[in-house]
Amino acid sequence: MKASQFFISTLKEAPADAEIVSHKLMMRAGMIKKLGAGIYSYMPTGLRVIRKIERIVREEMNRAGAVELLMPFVQPAELWQETGRWDKMGPELLRLKDRHERDFVLQPTSEEVVTDIVRTEIRSYKQLPLNLYQIQTKFRDERRPRFGIMRGREFTMKDAYSFDRDEEGMKVSYRQMYDAYIRIFQRFGLEFRAVAADNGAIGGSGSHEFHVIADTGEDAIVYCPESDYAANMEAAEALPLVAERAPAREALTRTPTPGKAKCEDVAELLGIPLERTVKSIVLATEGAEGEPAQIWLLLLRGDHDLNEIKASKVPGLAEFRFATEAEIVATFGTPPGYLGPIGAKAPIRVVADRTVANMSDFVCGANERDYHLTGVNWGRDLPEPLVADLRNVVEGDASPDGKGRLAICRGIEVGHVFMLGTRYSAAMNATFLDENGKTQPMQMGCYGIGVTRIVGAAIEQNYDERGIIWPAAIAPFEVVVCPVGYDRSEAVKAEADRIHAELLAAGVDAILDDRGERPGVMFADWELIGVPHRVVVGDRGLKEGQVEYQGRRDAEASRVAVADIVGHVRKLLAD
Amino acid sequence: MKASQFFISTLKEAPADAEIVSHKLMMRAGMIKKLGAGIYSYMPTGLRVIRKIERIVREEMNRAGAVELLMPFVQPAELWQETGRWDKMGPELLRLKDRHERDFVLQPTSEEVVTDIVRTEIRSYKQLPLNLYQIQTKFRDERRPRFGIMRGREFTMKDAYSFDRDEEGMKVSYRQMYDAYIRIFQRFGLEFRAVAADNGAIGGSGSHEFHVIADTGEDAIVYCPESDYAANMEAAEALPLVAERAPAREALTRTPTPGKAKCEDVAELLGIPLERTVKSIVLATEGAEGEPAQIWLLLLRGDHDLNEIKASKVPGLAEFRFATEAEIVATFGTPPGYLGPIGAKAPIRVVADRTVANMSDFVCGANERDYHLTGVNWGRDLPEPLVADLRNVVEGDASPDGKGRLAICRGIEVGHVFMLGTRYSAAMNATFLDENGKTQPMQMGCYGIGVTRIVGAAIEQNYDERGIIWPAAIAPFEVVVCPVGYDRSEAVKAEADRIHAELLAAGVDAILDDRGERPGVMFADWELIGVPHRVVVGDRGLKEGQVEYQGRRDAEASRVAVADIVGHVRKLLAD
Repeated sequence: MKASQFFISTLKEAPADAEIVSHKLMMRAGMIKKLGAGIYSYMPTGLRVIRKIERIVREEMNRAGAVELLMPFVQPAELWQETGRWDKMGPELLRLKDRHERDFVLQPTSEEVVTDIVRTEIRSYKQLPLNLYQIQTKFRDERRPRFGIMRGREFTMKDAYSFDRDEEGMKVSYRQMYDAYIRIFQRFGLEFRAVAADNGAIGGSGSHEFHVIADTGEDAIVYCPESDYAANMEAAEALPLVAERAPAREALTRTPTPGKAKCEDVAELLGIPLERTVKSIVLATEGAEGEPAQIWLLLLRGDHDLNEIKASKVPGLAEFRFATEAEIVATFGTPPGYLGPIGAKAPIRVVADRTVANMSDFVCGANERDYHLTGVNWGRDLPEPLVADLRNVVEGDASPDGKGRLAICRGIEVGHVFMLGTRYSAAMNATFLDENGKTQPMQMGCYGIGVTRIVGAAIEQNYDERGIIWPAAIAPFEVVVCPVGYDRSEAVKAEADRIHAELLAAGVDAILDDRGERPGVMFADWELIGVPHRVVVGDRGLKEGQVEYQGRRDAEASRVAVADIVGHVRKLLAD
Repeated sequence: MKASQFFISTLKEAPADAEIVSHKLMMRAGMIKKLGAGIYSYMPTGLRVIRKIERIVREEMNRAGAVELLMPFVQPAELWQETGRWDKMGPELLRLKDRHERDFVLQPTSEEVVTDIVRTEIRSYKQLPLNLYQIQTKFRDERRPRFGIMRGREFTMKDAYSFDRDEEGMKVSYRQMYDAYIRIFQRFGLEFRAVAADNGAIGGSGSHEFHVIADTGEDAIVYCPESDYAANMEAAEALPLVAERAPAREALTRTPTPGKAKCEDVAELLGIPLERTVKSIVLATEGAEGEPAQIWLLLLRGDHDLNEIKASKVPGLAEFRFATEAEIVATFGTPPGYLGPIGAKAPIRVVADRTVANMSDFVCGANERDYHLTGVNWGRDLPEPLVADLRNVVEGDASPDGKGRLAICRGIEVGHVFMLGTRYSAAMNATFLDENGKTQPMQMGCYGIGVTRIVGAAIEQNYDERGIIWPAAIAPFEVVVCPVGYDRSEAVKAEADRIHAELLAAGVDAILDDRGERPGVMFADWELIGVPHRVVVGDRGLKEGQVEYQGRRDAEASRVAVADIVGHVRKLLAD
């Protein structure tokens, strides 16, 4: 490719609405162009990256036995009504009407359509397992699209759906996809982590997220450097920090703590570590028609944070909400800040975090303004609580696999694998006849990769003050040949042309910058665009039979003999 | 590829709503699956064909210097309002609102978006010419979608847009695209024809359509077998069939023709050839506010058909409509069937087709019920008319290039190249600075290829009673290896596996049918799917060191030595 025949358009400054590094650099490098909120054109440079990502995804999906198809972007409402998602999904599901006033949606994913295809195509267990995937435009009408294509409305996603005879088969299919994802992200050349995840709203019984590691990531990832344990913050299990409850030593004492409504302030006032305090969080669940709400008191150590996903898994709390101040006053006789499990006015259900359950002589609110209780002990002062894992893990916690201590890093979610079970197949009656001629629902899994999101995530992980630094596998070009004086020096032109041609002939994705820009402008453009390898051809070097090579992360250029440069670059790309 | 790892699903019968051969065969071969009216999933077999078409299109577009990008499917209304297409386009432009009640459209093409990109990116004549293209999903909310993916609502289209400094440059860009299209359709291996076309509603000053030739095509294509003249019926120029007007020989005579309202009946009654009669067609154009409509009388020889596009090009007739019966009676004093240019009651404008203008002693209506005039002569009986090319050409007409006689065939339009001029750039202020620092509007061209439509057109051109017959370049697979007894005979399995592997290693897109189907079922499937080359491996042949080869169009199989079969197939594919 010659730059003069390509479309290169770089900017000195990013537009004001670009908030994060990847968005700024993509705009400056001319990779995307905004058309509307969360809607972007992929310019030629950006599209090349997307195509390389797609190709790797496609090759590994095919290798894993998945079969590609393409489902419509505009989908009739009926199927979405059949699974209930038409009603359940909020306005992020964009609905529209055709000329005959029939309802349609723009696909955010395709569970309904693929299940519809499979229920008419599959009759027998002999046709299973089956894994169908597409790489296709998706639309989610985000309330607040931002971060460029990281959280856009129109985006490209690879979505795959597996169909199996039984749960065991589904787990095999799931594992194949998990392994394929590992290969895919390895081939991208990105630092990533597969983490156990909570299933969230989609239902089912198991899932993993794939995160590109980046300090700017929105998600906290918990992992154990000494083992392969990794989970997202929602799913990471927190073990009790106190292994065994110590015997009570203090008497239960009503202690004045005027104006000290926070654990930190109480600990400071009392001269005790924060780890001795317990905080009270009040939740509510709706009772039966006409009944008042059930009030729940969740207890966490003063320095810990509630994990709402974990709370929602406590039996009875699936649909919890935070209690209102009126409910709190009515139940405890005091406003928040002085609450505790002892002496509440109305019946409450107490759930203690695993760590709190093993604490003794702890401090909590007295259910009386400006008072706390010290020397509180389970069993002696109040009944044994219901115990659950309620908190977010923190750095240094013991790993749940017993193999070390947990660390936390930031990640950007770019892939997700789910075990769906029969959530969709049961709703849509996607069944098959088993070996005994009995009708069974298919066991499904679904597997997504955010193709366009990976572009942003890759940049968040790989950039410097000069621009993007692409891993070669997904770079818009692997090598740029920069001639200095292409239009003035015949020797430079001849050598640059030859090196470019030889690289192309060797299957290297090389671009020759024949635009005639000054070296400073030329180098700055390619550093901004992030091409990983650069070869500079100039008269001075050629006199000594040399050209300059510089990797995008290298501090300095090195001299390489003209005769060796193609081999040099090929070797670097092969490594 | 092994068939067991692919998704093959064939049907004995096509669904009842499949009207045409390609739709029936695509359904039966499992290439597409209907999701809604005009909305189809592309199943794995169909998607392979689409991808091959896309690859050829992409390679030739790149070779022609066009640069690929990807524009959004969901586009904000503002740009469409800027060019006026928001108002002008009917309900085939599907409009929708997002969660904030903002207006959007689903792209049917992308003139607005690409012009918006270019007007912000291009400043100087030095950046021109530029040709940007995408291969992307489009949506047209057809009133009556039919013929499967031939006239679907959601479809895949390659659309390209050229930007030039001046008209001369635009013509060069246009020619490059024209040439690229010729290469593209040649590479598809389809019989096609590029024909001069009328621009239609899109505006501009020149265009060609690319048609796949098929008896079932919707469009009539006019061409000269002795030259390269070709045009669609709308654009094909009709020369006068009478070279020079003969002198008048008959007297003008009012002749009773009771109940004979058609030229055919009048000719029969009078015992003259139909070619002596002239038919009258009454059009109207709206006058100024409050004024009555202007009535036009168009005269064609009795055996000719009106070409409405040509009529609309007569000065003053751009916005014509057919006159109402009331207008006809008011103007001519008689109902249709007895109309003519002589003796109308109200002023009319007469336009004669070129052939009619050279006729003498002709027969036309007398503007009196049950009467015609015979012996009508221009100049003597009525004033010389305005003359224009008004009729459709017919088989055997002289070619406008003077090189032979015209023939007519049927075609399916799958590509279209347009000179747009400044229609969009002027409306959207897409300008550049020329060499003299003067602001100029860019000269545009646009170039479409209906990717999914080509799939249907290719089948309409290439099928037999057993199924589809793909040209190798766009076949879902180039070769199928059919082992007879794959699961029973070790020799068959070993040879079939080896041949399959060798074909793959040689870069041939081969599939091995390892499903274990009976030969009859297996052969019928692949003939229906239309794979152009088949290799059958069986024990009987292997004993003599042979396998069977059969091309999809061959009446019989031929024996080929096992050692030669890969070379044999490769040679056929190379030819």
